[in-house]
Amino acid sequence: MSATDVARQAREAFDETQTLLSMRGSEQADAARVKALECIRAALEQARDEIQAANQRDVAEANELVAVGKLSKQLVSRLDLFSKPGKWESMLQGVSDVARLPSPLDVCTRATRLADGEPATGARAATGPLDLYRVTCPIGVLLCIFEARPEVIVNIASLAIKSGNAAILKGGKESKHSAAVLSRCISTALEQSELPRYLVQSVQSRDEIQALLHEERYIDMVIPRGSNALVKSIRQEARMPVMGHADGLCAAYVHEDAPERLAVETVLDAKLDYPSACNAIETLLVHRHHCTSGLWCTLAHALLAAGVRLHCDDESRACLDGALSDAERSLVCAATPEDFDTEFLDLDLAVRIVGSVDEAVQHIQQHGSGHTDVILCKPLHEGAATPGTSAADIFTRSISSSSVFVNASSRFADGFRFGYGTEVGISTGRTHARGPVGLEGLVIYKYVLRSSGDGAQTAGAFAPGEHQRAWSHRALDNVYPTL
Amino acid sequence: MSATDVARQAREAFDETQTLLSMRGSEQADAARVKALECIRAALEQARDEIQAANQRDVAEANELVAVGKLSKQLVSRLDLFSKPGKWESMLQGVSDVARLPSPLDVCTRATRLADGEPATGARAATGPLDLYRVTCPIGVLLCIFEARPEVIVNIASLAIKSGNAAILKGGKESKHSAAVLSRCISTALEQSELPRYLVQSVQSRDEIQALLHEERYIDMVIPRGSNALVKSIRQEARMPVMGHADGLCAAYVHEDAPERLAVETVLDAKLDYPSACNAIETLLVHRHHCTSGLWCTLAHALLAAGVRLHCDDESRACLDGALSDAERSLVCAATPEDFDTEFLDLDLAVRIVGSVDEAVQHIQQHGSGHTDVILCKPLHEGAATPGTSAADIFTRSISSSSVFVNASSRFADGFRFGYGTEVGISTGRTHARGPVGLEGLVIYKYVLRSSGDGAQTAGAFAPGEHQRAWSHRALDNVYPTL
Repeated sequence: MSATDVARQAREAFDETQTLLSMRGSEQADAARVKALECIRAALEQARDEIQAANQRDVAEANELVAVGKLSKQLVSRLDLFSKPGKWESMLQGVSDVARLPSPLDVCTRATRLADGEPATGARAATGPLDLYRVTCPIGVLLCIFEARPEVIVNIASLAIKSGNAAILKGGKESKHSAAVLSRCISTALEQSELPRYLVQSVQSRDEIQALLHEERYIDMVIPRGSNALVKSIRQEARMPVMGHADGLCAAYVHEDAPERLAVETVLDAKLDYPSACNAIETLLVHRHHCTSGLWCTLAHALLAAGVRLHCDDESRACLDGALSDAERSLVCAATPEDFDTEFLDLDLAVRIVGSVDEAVQHIQQHGSGHTDVILCKPLHEGAATPGTSAADIFTRSISSSSVFVNASSRFADGFRFGYGTEVGISTGRTHARGPVGLEGLVIYKYVLRSSGDGAQTAGAFAPGEHQRAWSHRALDNVYPTL
Repeated sequence: MSATDVARQAREAFDETQTLLSMRGSEQADAARVKALECIRAALEQARDEIQAANQRDVAEANELVAVGKLSKQLVSRLDLFSKPGKWESMLQGVSDVARLPSPLDVCTRATRLADGEPATGARAATGPLDLYRVTCPIGVLLCIFEARPEVIVNIASLAIKSGNAAILKGGKESKHSAAVLSRCISTALEQSELPRYLVQSVQSRDEIQALLHEERYIDMVIPRGSNALVKSIRQEARMPVMGHADGLCAAYVHEDAPERLAVETVLDAKLDYPSACNAIETLLVHRHHCTSGLWCTLAHALLAAGVRLHCDDESRACLDGALSDAERSLVCAATPEDFDTEFLDLDLAVRIVGSVDEAVQHIQQHGSGHTDVILCKPLHEGAATPGTSAADIFTRSISSSSVFVNASSRFADGFRFGYGTEVGISTGRTHARGPVGLEGLVIYKYVLRSSGDGAQTAGAFAPGEHQRAWSHRALDNVYPTL
C-alpha cells in the first residue's frame, strides 16, 4: 500500500468517526473512545507473550549491533519493554490513565451573541438571535514519528484516540518487531470497537515517511519525537505544521542577589537530575558579583564534585584559578564559542560571567532554543506583586522561551509535572502549542453559528438601509446548547 | 540588504522590544504600543499629499495595463486609495481602532499550584509554593504577503504592533509606489516612538520572498493574503507555519425540513451578497425531497433571476425541465465533476441533489476546503438543547470546517461580524487559529513558573524517598501576580 493510500485511509477513518460519533452527544462519543482504549488495553494484555517474544527479538538484534559498536547500550535499555520491573505495567496503566482524563473535545471556549432577534418587519419573517460558539474539536490526522521506545506507539495511539484524531505512527527500525505486534493489537482492538479500524495505522519504512510528509491534503500535523537530527530533517521536509522540539538548549542565570544555597541546589538539580534530558541546563550564566561573593566558587566546587566538566569563559575560569584541586582542574576547560550553542546532553556545562540581567537576557535570546530558561534571584514572596523592574520581572518578560522559571529547576518543564497527566511532547515552536503539550495540544476549535427563529439570517440585513440590523457582540455564558 | 539581514533585523527588533518593554508593567507596555500607533496615524495624515501622488502613479500604471488587457479593472479599484469616498479615512480610523482594542498580551489563561510550600527539614531550607502561570505573549516575527490593496500594509502593521510582534511586509508589485511611501511613514513614526525602527519593515521583490520563506531561524509565521495561487505557492515553499486560506469552497445544504423562505433568502445572501468573497457559497446541496416540494424550483428561479449560472447535476436539472423560461434556461448547464471542486468567485453555483444529511456531509468532507459550510433546516428554538440526532446536530458535529453554520448565511464568517473588531485573515488550517482570526491569532503563550520562599525548588525533591514532596496540581485564580 502506498503512502498516499495510508494517508487517505487515515483521513477517511477520521471523517468516518466524525460522522459516526455525531449521532451521539459529547458524553456518549467520549464513552465510545474510552471503550476503544479499554479494548486496546485488553488486547495488549492478551498478547503479552507474543509482544514479549517480538521485543526480545528486537533486543537481541540490537545487542548484536552494540557488540560491533553500532548502537549504544542506552538504546537497548530504551528498547527493552520487559526487563525493567513495572515498565510493561506502566505502559498498560498509561492507556487507562489517558482514557480517564477529561475529554478535551466539545468544550465551548467562547460564546457570543452576534445579534439579537428582530420582529417581523415588512416582507421579513421574525428572526431569532444569532449566536456564535467556539467549540474544541480534533485536529484531524496526526503523523507521529519517533525513535527507539516501542511503548510510545501505545502512548501516542491512546492520546490520539482520546482527542478524537486519527494517527499514522512510525517507530524506529530498532523496534520494528515490537512495533509490528503492538500495532496489530491496536488494530484488532479498534476492529472490536465502534471506531474505524484505520483510525490508527503504522508504517515501517523511511521512504514512506518522506512521501507522507508531502501529503498535506490528508495529514494535518506532524509530531516528531527523537534526536535533533530527526526533528530537523522532518522540519525541512514537512509541508504541514510540525510540533516538537529539536534543541533543548536551556540556561540558568544566577543574578546578583541570588542566595547561595538556593542557587547551588537548583543549578545542581537542573544539571544533574537527568543530564541527557532536553530540560537539563547546558549553559550557566553567573552575575559578575559572584566572582567575588564566593558563590561562583562554591557552585563550581559542587558541580565539579558531581563530575560536571565546566567549559568556562576567561572570567569564570580566572576566578577558579588557585581554588581548584588537580582533580577538579582536569574537569575545567576554556569555552569555545560553539560551546554556548551546544546541547551537550551530558555532564558538560558552558559557563559565562555577565554584568547584568540584560546581558543574560541577550545571551539567551541569541543562543537559546526557546525551551526553558531559569533565573535564580532573591526569593519572591507569595502573592506579592513584584515591582516592574525586579530582575525576575525583566527576565520573565524579556525571555520569550516556552518556559521561563524563577527560582525553580528547569527539570520542572514536563507535562506530568505541569499537571497535564501525560504529554505529547515538548514544543519549542511559537504557534499552536508550546512547552509541555498535553491533550489540549491535539485539539483545535471550530466556530458554530446558530440562528433561532423563523427568519433568514442574512449579512445583507446588516448593511446600511432602512431596516438595518444592529450587531450586539455580547458575551454569552460559555454553554454550548447542543451538548 | 539581503533577505537574511532583513529577517535578522526583524528578530533583533522583536527581542529589543521584549527587553525594552520588560521594564514596564503590562499596561505601560501597551501604552507605548498605542502611542506608536498614534504616531503612525499622525505620520500618515501628514504625508497625505505624498501618498496620494504615489497612489495615483500606481493607478495610472495599472490603468495602462488594463488598457492592454493585462490587468482587471477590479484590481485598479482595489489599488485606488482616494477615489472612493471614505476609504482613506477608514484606513486611518483602522489604526486608531486597533490601538483602542484591549491588549491581547500578558493575559493569564491558566494558573496552577504545582506544589504547596514545605517547612525546613533537615538540611533543606523552607520552600514556598511553586506556581505555574500560562501567559499570552507575542509570536515573534511575522512575514505578511499580500496583493493589491495598499491599505493592508497599514492594517497589518497596526495589528502586528498592537500584538507585540515584529513584521516584514510585502505588497503586490501593482501597489509599489503607494507601499513605499506608506512604509516610510510607518518607519518614520516608529523612529519617533519608543519602539525600534525595524519592528516593521517592507520588502519589494519576489526574490526576497523566496529567501525569507527559508529563514525559519528568524521568522515565526507567514500570513499570506491573496489569490489561491499565491497562498499555495507560499505553503509549498515556507519552512515556518503558514496561516491563511487558499480556497474558500463553501457549501450550503438545504435539508428536508428547511422552510422555503428561510432557505431561499439565506442562500441568495450567501451567494449574492459579495460573490467574489471567499465566504460566498460555491456549492448548493439540496435534499431530494425538495425536487417535489417545490422549494428547489423556487430557489432556482430566484438564483437565475439574480443572474446566477447554475451548474446542475442530472437530478437537479431534470427537476427544472419545463419550468424555465428561455432566458433562464441559458443560465443552466450540466455540472462537470470539476465544478464541485471549483471556487468560482463569480455568479456560478454548482448544484447537487442528495438523499440525506449524511450524504451532504460526505460531499463536503470530500470537496470542501474547510472554510464555511451551512445547513438550512427547521428553525431551532433559542436555548433549547437540540436532540443529538437532529440534522443540525449531525451536520455541526460531522463537518470539521472552521466555521459551521445553522440557518445563517456563510457571509457571517468574517472577523468584524464575529465581533473581533478587525481581522488578520481567515484561516482554513487546523492548528493554531482557525476561521476569522483576530488579534488573538497573533499571540501565543509562555509558561512562567514562580517559586516563593527561600528553599530551592528541585525536581529531585519529588522523587521517591524519605522526604518526598507531593504534587498538588490545583487550579489557582487566574491572576498573574506581576501584572
